[in-house]
Amino acid sequence: MATSNDIGVTDLLPRLKDQGYDAERVARRRAWIEEKTGVSLRNIGSVSFDTEELRGNIENPIGAAQVPMGVAGPILVHGRHASGMFYIPMATSEGALIRSYERGMVALTRAGGVQTAILADENQIVPTFFFPDVASAAAFSEWAPGQMAQIRAAAESTTRHGKLTDLKCYQVGRQVLVNFGYFTGDAQGMNMLVKATDAACQWIQNNYPIASYFVFSGMCSEKRPSGFLLTRGKGKRVTAGALLPHDVLKMYLHCTAEKLFQIWHSTVIGHLHANSIGYNAQYANGLTAIFIATGQDVANVVNASCGVTNFELQPEGLYVSLMLPALTVATIGGGTGLPTQREALSIMGCYGASKAKKFAEIVAAAVLGGEISMGAAITTGGFVSAHEHYGRNRPK
Amino acid sequence: MATSNDIGVTDLLPRLKDQGYDAERVARRRAWIEEKTGVSLRNIGSVSFDTEELRGNIENPIGAAQVPMGVAGPILVHGRHASGMFYIPMATSEGALIRSYERGMVALTRAGGVQTAILADENQIVPTFFFPDVASAAAFSEWAPGQMAQIRAAAESTTRHGKLTDLKCYQVGRQVLVNFGYFTGDAQGMNMLVKATDAACQWIQNNYPIASYFVFSGMCSEKRPSGFLLTRGKGKRVTAGALLPHDVLKMYLHCTAEKLFQIWHSTVIGHLHANSIGYNAQYANGLTAIFIATGQDVANVVNASCGVTNFELQPEGLYVSLMLPALTVATIGGGTGLPTQREALSIMGCYGASKAKKFAEIVAAAVLGGEISMGAAITTGGFVSAHEHYGRNRPK
Amino acid sequence: MATSNDIGVTDLLPRLKDQGYDAERVARRRAWIEEKTGVSLRNIGSVSFDTEELRGNIENPIGAAQVPMGVAGPILVHGRHASGMFYIPMATSEGALIRSYERGMVALTRAGGVQTAILADENQIVPTFFFPDVASAAAFSEWAPGQMAQIRAAAESTTRHGKLTDLKCYQVGRQVLVNFGYFTGDAQGMNMLVKATDAACQWIQNNYPIASYFVFSGMCSEKRPSGFLLTRGKGKRVTAGALLPHDVLKMYLHCTAEKLFQIWHSTVIGHLHANSIGYNAQYANGLTAIFIATGQDVANVVNASCGVTNFELQPEGLYVSLMLPALTVATIGGGTGLPTQREALSIMGCYGASKAKKFAEIVAAAVLGGEISMGAAITTGGFVSAHEHYGRNRPK
Amino acid sequence: MATSNDIGVTDLLPRLKDQGYDAERVARRRAWIEEKTGVSLRNIGSVSFDTEELRGNIENPIGAAQVPMGVAGPILVHGRHASGMFYIPMATSEGALIRSYERGMVALTRAGGVQTAILADENQIVPTFFFPDVASAAAFSEWAPGQMAQIRAAAESTTRHGKLTDLKCYQVGRQVLVNFGYFTGDAQGMNMLVKATDAACQWIQNNYPIASYFVFSGMCSEKRPSGFLLTRGKGKRVTAGALLPHDVLKMYLHCTAEKLFQIWHSTVIGHLHANSIGYNAQYANGLTAIFIATGQDVANVVNASCGVTNFELQPEGLYVSLMLPALTVATIGGGTGLPTQREALSIMGCYGASKAKKFAEIVAAAVLGGEISMGAAITTGGFVSAHEHYGRNRPK
Repeated sequence: MATSNDIGVTDLLPRLKDQGYDAERVARRRAWIEEKTGVSLRNIGSVSFDTEELRGNIENPIGAAQVPMGVAGPILVHGRHASGMFYIPMATSEGALIRSYERGMVALTRAGGVQTAILADENQIVPTFFFPDVASAAAFSEWAPGQMAQIRAAAESTTRHGKLTDLKCYQVGRQVLVNFGYFTGDAQGMNMLVKATDAACQWIQNNYPIASYFVFSGMCSEKRPSGFLLTRGKGKRVTAGALLPHDVLKMYLHCTAEKLFQIWHSTVIGHLHANSIGYNAQYANGLTAIFIATGQDVANVVNASCGVTNFELQPEGLYVSLMLPALTVATIGGGTGLPTQREALSIMGCYGASKAKKFAEIVAAAVLGGEISMGAAITTGGFVSAHEHYGRNRPK
Repeated sequence: MATSNDIGVTDLLPRLKDQGYDAERVARRRAWIEEKTGVSLRNIGSVSFDTEELRGNIENPIGAAQVPMGVAGPILVHGRHASGMFYIPMATSEGALIRSYERGMVALTRAGGVQTAILADENQIVPTFFFPDVASAAAFSEWAPGQMAQIRAAAESTTRHGKLTDLKCYQVGRQVLVNFGYFTGDAQGMNMLVKATDAACQWIQNNYPIASYFVFSGMCSEKRPSGFLLTRGKGKRVTAGALLPHDVLKMYLHCTAEKLFQIWHSTVIGHLHANSIGYNAQYANGLTAIFIATGQDVANVVNASCGVTNFELQPEGLYVSLMLPALTVATIGGGTGLPTQREALSIMGCYGASKAKKFAEIVAAAVLGGEISMGAAITTGGFVSAHEHYGRNRPK
Repeated sequence: MATSNDIGVTDLLPRLKDQGYDAERVARRRAWIEEKTGVSLRNIGSVSFDTEELRGNIENPIGAAQVPMGVAGPILVHGRHASGMFYIPMATSEGALIRSYERGMVALTRAGGVQTAILADENQIVPTFFFPDVASAAAFSEWAPGQMAQIRAAAESTTRHGKLTDLKCYQVGRQVLVNFGYFTGDAQGMNMLVKATDAACQWIQNNYPIASYFVFSGMCSEKRPSGFLLTRGKGKRVTAGALLPHDVLKMYLHCTAEKLFQIWHSTVIGHLHANSIGYNAQYANGLTAIFIATGQDVANVVNASCGVTNFELQPEGLYVSLMLPALTVATIGGGTGLPTQREALSIMGCYGASKAKKFAEIVAAAVLGGEISMGAAITTGGFVSAHEHYGRNRPK
Repeated sequence: MATSNDIGVTDLLPRLKDQGYDAERVARRRAWIEEKTGVSLRNIGSVSFDTEELRGNIENPIGAAQVPMGVAGPILVHGRHASGMFYIPMATSEGALIRSYERGMVALTRAGGVQTAILADENQIVPTFFFPDVASAAAFSEWAPGQMAQIRAAAESTTRHGKLTDLKCYQVGRQVLVNFGYFTGDAQGMNMLVKATDAACQWIQNNYPIASYFVFSGMCSEKRPSGFLLTRGKGKRVTAGALLPHDVLKMYLHCTAEKLFQIWHSTVIGHLHANSIGYNAQYANGLTAIFIATGQDVANVVNASCGVTNFELQPEGLYVSLMLPALTVATIGGGTGLPTQREALSIMGCYGASKAKKFAEIVAAAVLGGEISMGAAITTGGFVSAHEHYGRNRPK
């Protein structure tokens, strides 16, 4: 087996001045990799903007991945924060994905549009405190909620936008997991939360002598799937729904309400049998494509795609809806300000401050389009033929 | 509320000749969006390659998202399919992510490298068959496994690469969910599977008169989190592990084995309390960044990030390992052949046929780097400072 | 197939005067079954008390099951509600179960006893309200919390003991699940809750014209396993813990702290792989035996056995603890007043009013005994031999 | 805090000759408890049979819990193993439970009876093996399946009834969980499995030098809720279903197919939101009452109540069904031979050898009765009134 001698100083990536974000140093790093591996990275190196803009979003930059971007829509949204007709930029390499979403969005729009509502807006972080025994942990569990004002002051001293909205203790043996809830405005907020919570924890440690802590307990379910996400949420909790009349179903989805309901019903059984979290047809497809296009933290798709889609038979057609309890989307910070990402957000009028709730409503409506389109494709056998038609890049 | 009159023919995206993949028509579509929304899409339009290459990966193309790409490494891998030192291309906009992974990879390499093993390689699809009652469904459940040879012939008649490896019936009342397992070679394989399974289902329908079916039951957990993924797997099931000696922990991760174990132990409690699927620190971060860089179906991160990380105290240090049961990665098909993605795969020597298992082992080793680095950052408080240092793009 | 003609009036169980709880009518019903089936029910008929006492606990009574009862202990408890040495009555037919629990309890007592704490005390019921669309459901979700005072008045008008402590809306599409939290005193409280909540729902329906509702949504997880139970709890949330010094481990459990920790660690991996809810060794064994002995609603074992056991290595030994978030136990109502059950509760000084929290703490401490004993038995191979020795009733 | 000095020899339960199962020694132990606690245990002491029969089922016996027993039915079953009309003994203290089940059973019988099928019959145990690193664990994972014949021989050398039916390796890092599947005949089989598997593990240890092991890994989900149970099963996997015509629904359940379907549909949403395992109305109620009455290991209710109930609208009425993947029931061994328990099994013709599959089918049909009755009670508001009427023992 290899030993630690195997790695030499020439194997380490070059450390460049000021971290090397200027064009010349990015090129030099790329050339180093090209030489090490014998691979030309011409396309990766084709960045259409000043590479200094990459600072804060990546380390050891060598360029950019170019992910195909298309648009789907229009989708008509009737929410409190989003209202009107929207086109949705989606970045993906999965053939037929945009066609699938587009078909669903057009059907929803033809049906009169999608109602949306933001039900909650709170991100979570759950540090954990350690005590010598159950009794002392219990004493802390009783003490902490009473210090909300001072804990809030400590937390909010580190941020202009974050607001501490809730604090709840979950004791397990001699460990106390303290669930901090925050309003994070238009940012995804995880970095803001960690910093604020660390300050709060230090205040606690200074005022409750025996506590040691870690700022993460794993309970927050950031980028992880869990039941906690459904009950407690993370970021925007949003719902969307629409009535699809029989004629719209027939004309735009080529199926009946009964058939579409049957696919929902039978796949719910499949989800239950698989012990899935929640129920959905293809949340991850739509969310991932929108997240990549708009500079979201794409790894958050794991939490964001926990939710529940519902189809209900009505005399007039099919009522379709979804609820996403953990839609961690942002319109400022993270990758939202990068050139292509900012442009994509701007297509929906969602770049910058005071836009995150609007964006969340649009995303929910768009994702609902994918739910009905996928269902329809399965019932009609169109799934196979659409992928034959649009997904031609299958292995040869 | 809006009515269906709201959507006019001028609201629909222009349908262009031959679907409009040539540069001129992509530009025309982009201009149409620019006009509709008043937004300049200059950067999205800056594609470094022939837009005809987008065909099969996207519809309604307007250009590409440029996602910052950097490299982390080196990571020394001792697997059956991957062996040697690798640099990992990662595309992300989350500041500090690459630094975090790089630190972990270097520590693993300094420790002598990561052992990896592919434990299984089978993708799943689960169509569902409908019967009038429990007795007739039970009769089918008994009949179907005996037809394996003919079902396989029907399925494999549609594909040169897919092999039907297993067939198992799960009856629920009068519905029978039939789990088809396939070997899909170096492709992610979902499209291949759907087509093959549809052919198999049609053979069944022709030979078992009363069956109707849907090709999806929801049980396959494609791009969804579920317990089924842990037991049954999806794509590559891979494990990776290494012993981190005390001196490596101290020098490269600035923490002790005991402290790193304590963070594992206490966050396992948090995961159990959250009713998470499996346990991990940040699988989704690493997987997403690699998936975007290399043209994987990024939505598969949802299933791929179900797994189990383990830290074990040893006299000589800390044994760290992970098991990913549903790592659906490909080196051919999908987005792997796109220009920047192909270059990224090539950096690891993983582009093309006979490379998927190698790639899976490298991914598992790289992701393990993120697990230890995250743990170390929490124990030392480095998490907050690293994000302060590298993630400067937080909202202003 | 059989038709509805198959069932005749002589097949229906005899309806007896005043529901037939007096000894003579219980005997007559029993004789009817004996005649129908040709089976002597002599032992089932041997009830040591007035059969009129069965009224309210069962219908169509024919006697009683005699479930073997033994005692385990003593267990020394240091809680706020329970303090001192207790003997635990357990009814079971699983050989070795009591010996296993006894061994653990004695070890905990030798170690100085078990600390316990009640962390919360709230039962849950979640009716669901239906609306025509997402917007009207969202309006209700905003309106309802503001009516807490009047909703509480309506709910509490039906009960002298139940107190409405919380009300939270979970909207999913056009359905709103309203989580009512109640303090139910010393009763398990489900019947009380249903009645109170039905009154509250009727008040809502009278004051919010368009709502229709069902009093159950399934979310409450009564007698069902779920992630919700961990976050939200049900009945008593209780924790218990103790430090087992090395000498106690050696003398009473015949194992080392390291070995016991290894079994915990390795079986946590097994639980994660199985996608279990929480982690435990054998909660269900102890809870079931105590629940049967003391007249609890035994089906509640399903929710009560969701929890988390933790073992932690310390220089001085092993810290062992558990947290049960959904321990729905009662000391009044249900089966607690039946003759043998009342006697069993009395053994622990837990029969009647103001005893439920004390009882919950004793149960948690006793169940912790089973966790350490099971772990020790596995590490020493004693599991097999103990069952050979005590469980002699295996099939011949 | 108390110290280990607190427990004296006079606090330990008296150890009596030959473990003290004869009537006189059971009485002496009971008297000891009575004296310690000042409580009369007259009813607990009223055992209608020779206390020597308790041997193998309990330790430290003091008598028996008398749990009220009634009968529900008849239920008409059309299975392969059970066929005909059955009366179901149920032991419970939950008022209205038997009335609820009886109503459902009669409705199913009026509808022409319930079809049932055993889909699988395999119990699971999953020992875990430890290796120094990932590579050596992987080598073992490849080696073990090839030794099936010899492993089977070792396992089956310890039992006349158990048959090793499957062996599958799940590697996680350097630990390998080996899933043994067994056919256990008419016994619940856990003790048989542990002994057989321990012998198999010893054979492995003798033939694969470096392996150490524990006979339990936690993955088997014995008496614990998990997703693994749905996919892999435990004991009998059984399904049951019936078509309820409109007139039966109206006459015996006082509701419509549409209303009953609505309650199913809306509570599925509640289950999904709670992150429940599977879906059911009240499995635990019926299973617990039957398990207590018939001497099953009642703690197995936790695994047995993981399953899926389905309601489907049909032109002719409502098709209702359930699937229980982990119904660990026995007709020999455990508590099945105790006097009242044997009588209860005999009522159904299910005592002794070759009866377990018959019993499993009857249980599934009976439990289905509870599913429809609960649903109907909620839709009609009868739930509240039934508990008012039958559950009169609520706290005063």
